[in-house]
Amino acid sequence: MVAPLKVGIAGLGTVGAEVVRLIDQQSRVLSARCGRGVRVVAVCARSKAKKRALDLRGVEWARSPLALASHPDIDVFVELMGGADDPALSAIEAALTRGKSVVTANKALIAKHGSKLAALAEAHGGALNYEAAVGAAIPIIKTLREGLAGTGIQRVYGILNGTCNYILTRMEQEGLSFAECLKDAQRLGYAEANPSFDVDGHDTAQKLAILASLAFGTKVNQKAVYVEGISSIAPEDLRAAEELGYRVKLLGVAVKTETGIEQRVHPTMVPRTSSIAQVMGVTNAVTIDGEGIPPITLVGPGAGGAATASAVVADIADIARGVRALPFGRPVAKLKQTTKAPMKHHAGGYYTRLMARDLAGTAATIATRLAEQKISIESIVQRHPDGGAAAANGRSAPVPVILITYATSEDAVHRALQAVRQDKVITGRPQVIRIEKN
Amino acid sequence: MVAPLKVGIAGLGTVGAEVVRLIDQQSRVLSARCGRGVRVVAVCARSKAKKRALDLRGVEWARSPLALASHPDIDVFVELMGGADDPALSAIEAALTRGKSVVTANKALIAKHGSKLAALAEAHGGALNYEAAVGAAIPIIKTLREGLAGTGIQRVYGILNGTCNYILTRMEQEGLSFAECLKDAQRLGYAEANPSFDVDGHDTAQKLAILASLAFGTKVNQKAVYVEGISSIAPEDLRAAEELGYRVKLLGVAVKTETGIEQRVHPTMVPRTSSIAQVMGVTNAVTIDGEGIPPITLVGPGAGGAATASAVVADIADIARGVRALPFGRPVAKLKQTTKAPMKHHAGGYYTRLMARDLAGTAATIATRLAEQKISIESIVQRHPDGGAAAANGRSAPVPVILITYATSEDAVHRALQAVRQDKVITGRPQVIRIEKN
Repeated sequence: MVAPLKVGIAGLGTVGAEVVRLIDQQSRVLSARCGRGVRVVAVCARSKAKKRALDLRGVEWARSPLALASHPDIDVFVELMGGADDPALSAIEAALTRGKSVVTANKALIAKHGSKLAALAEAHGGALNYEAAVGAAIPIIKTLREGLAGTGIQRVYGILNGTCNYILTRMEQEGLSFAECLKDAQRLGYAEANPSFDVDGHDTAQKLAILASLAFGTKVNQKAVYVEGISSIAPEDLRAAEELGYRVKLLGVAVKTETGIEQRVHPTMVPRTSSIAQVMGVTNAVTIDGEGIPPITLVGPGAGGAATASAVVADIADIARGVRALPFGRPVAKLKQTTKAPMKHHAGGYYTRLMARDLAGTAATIATRLAEQKISIESIVQRHPDGGAAAANGRSAPVPVILITYATSEDAVHRALQAVRQDKVITGRPQVIRIEKN
Repeated sequence: MVAPLKVGIAGLGTVGAEVVRLIDQQSRVLSARCGRGVRVVAVCARSKAKKRALDLRGVEWARSPLALASHPDIDVFVELMGGADDPALSAIEAALTRGKSVVTANKALIAKHGSKLAALAEAHGGALNYEAAVGAAIPIIKTLREGLAGTGIQRVYGILNGTCNYILTRMEQEGLSFAECLKDAQRLGYAEANPSFDVDGHDTAQKLAILASLAFGTKVNQKAVYVEGISSIAPEDLRAAEELGYRVKLLGVAVKTETGIEQRVHPTMVPRTSSIAQVMGVTNAVTIDGEGIPPITLVGPGAGGAATASAVVADIADIARGVRALPFGRPVAKLKQTTKAPMKHHAGGYYTRLMARDLAGTAATIATRLAEQKISIESIVQRHPDGGAAAANGRSAPVPVILITYATSEDAVHRALQAVRQDKVITGRPQVIRIEKN
């Protein structure tokens, strides 16, 4: 019998505690699966005194994450503290430099320092596993890194942030505003007091940067991701989407184009019949378009202590079994640089909602301006004005005009809308939402 | 640089040819991913003379699968001939006995001989990988074997046969009969000339037996699977399902119960809002309920040359990287025996469609008979009789009565329906479909 794998865990919050519990509860199965035991031998946490429903007898308390990472008795350093930089970063570096393996659930850190850490892991022969960093228990890292090892990837996209999907789902189902649903999400603990990181798309962007690296063999680079959040989405957009056969989701999309890898996060109209459109509430999902094969979609919990711990323990089990996958599936030296794709070159269909000053001439003006940019219109819907309100105002109230275009360039859409604004037939800013076909 | 992995492929049909093509096309990526090249050095096929759009220069032709499997120059024997027994079986045994690794897409063979072959692989140190055997490119084997290594599984279920799902989808969407849709499926090449293996559930049962083994640490045993096909499903059932908020799918379900592992394949009512209900046409999907975590669903192509080849090449890549996972995730000596669960103990909700002789007394009789068996009714719907037809007949035409029960035992349902039949208030055989909640 091989000696047990000795694990040190930094961070005993919800996830850390669940990992300790799971390793204990599943110890017999883990031994059978790995051909050796898995044992937590040391931990550290901000407060040792804090009450925890954990049996930590016989487990050493390290005085710092760095001390734990360098501890001669541990084989694997499990980083569950969070934070893109120190102390997590130097602790992980210390572990990797000593040839130890590292497991982390820290997307911010992998998105920022992933390539550098992967190079360290490679140089010293340790593993760097981070399945829990994207989509928690959904095995998306393993699928891209191993399960599709022999298949070229054309596109990977998904719902990577449960908070945004929860808000969009409630807005759609109950006709509520963004602000109302955000407040509810905060009350229920699905959104932070400062929700910007989630609702402005940055959380999704970090996860997308990681998936893009795995899918396309590029250096993980969150700065190469175009980011747009969901706060501009109105209930009217969701209603219009429904009528037109779409649903609005905050997607992270990484796609191979003629000019390179396009990485973008933005509210997106997806066909209602697509797998991704069915994903409701806090659930996450990722779709992978492999070359020559129909899409593969993985759906599941994107967060939560138990789901995250499940992925962390699977990562540890791989190490116990002796598996040392390259962190991004290929040697770091072979990973290519990516740059931010200019969105003006993005090609696709567009949804646009404009507020027309009056019904008669506006549609014709809009159609003309689009035609000038060679944009073909798939559908154009004009809402009936609210006659009562208009009469009360003594003048026509603005009327929503909703357009769906066939594939065109973002540049062309912006030029056409700019012209429409100069024609003064609309009020306010046009709402524009990109369409992603499956 | 490590020497390239030398691969021998038995079977050059659609999948085999695609594997050869993919290994060639992806050779640079595979080298980067695996740290060594992957090279097809020998093949065999029923006819060497057959025209193939393949570049096989420099590739040796073995005179038989057995000769290929025993070939001293190959590291991995890839079996793509099919058939549950010889010649595939003895060739695989020959390869494993020589310490070579084996990759196969052969579900019938793994379902029948999986445990025995896994023991051979274990004893001689080779891998036995079969990702393509269930759900083609959907990484379900890897997910159960590695991705959820640290999580107890409560239930695994899915749509594992594209033919059946195609037929049920068309029946539902177009109101067609089973026979009409089967004929179309055969015309389009989705169903065999002898469709029994697919539509009677045996294909699903083989795949389920494999998934159950991985999920629950049992010896794969297709004889332990209760099997019922889709030929009894009528358009009326699909219409009723829609009205009641369900959809009918042929599911394979393996679930941990108090008395053991229940494995069953049968038409199933699933809630329309569930991920599995959204899966249409030939697409496959598997949902895994891990202990304490929300369900994870994997959706994708369950068949097709490119999708199957994708999984085969990923399996080869794992071997090239040096990974030797236990074929069923645990040592064969630790796998438990399973027996067929008696369906009369199955507990769940039931859909029943009865043809009532006349409307007035029947509902009361049925309700009474169900109450005697302590079965609670969730809903009971009586269709309006077709007055015209009834008048033309000179007597009342039978009227469909549709029942949904709360969870009860199969035994109780059968006893109640037996009593209803003896009451002579219905004609014909009652239709009974089990309900699976998510």
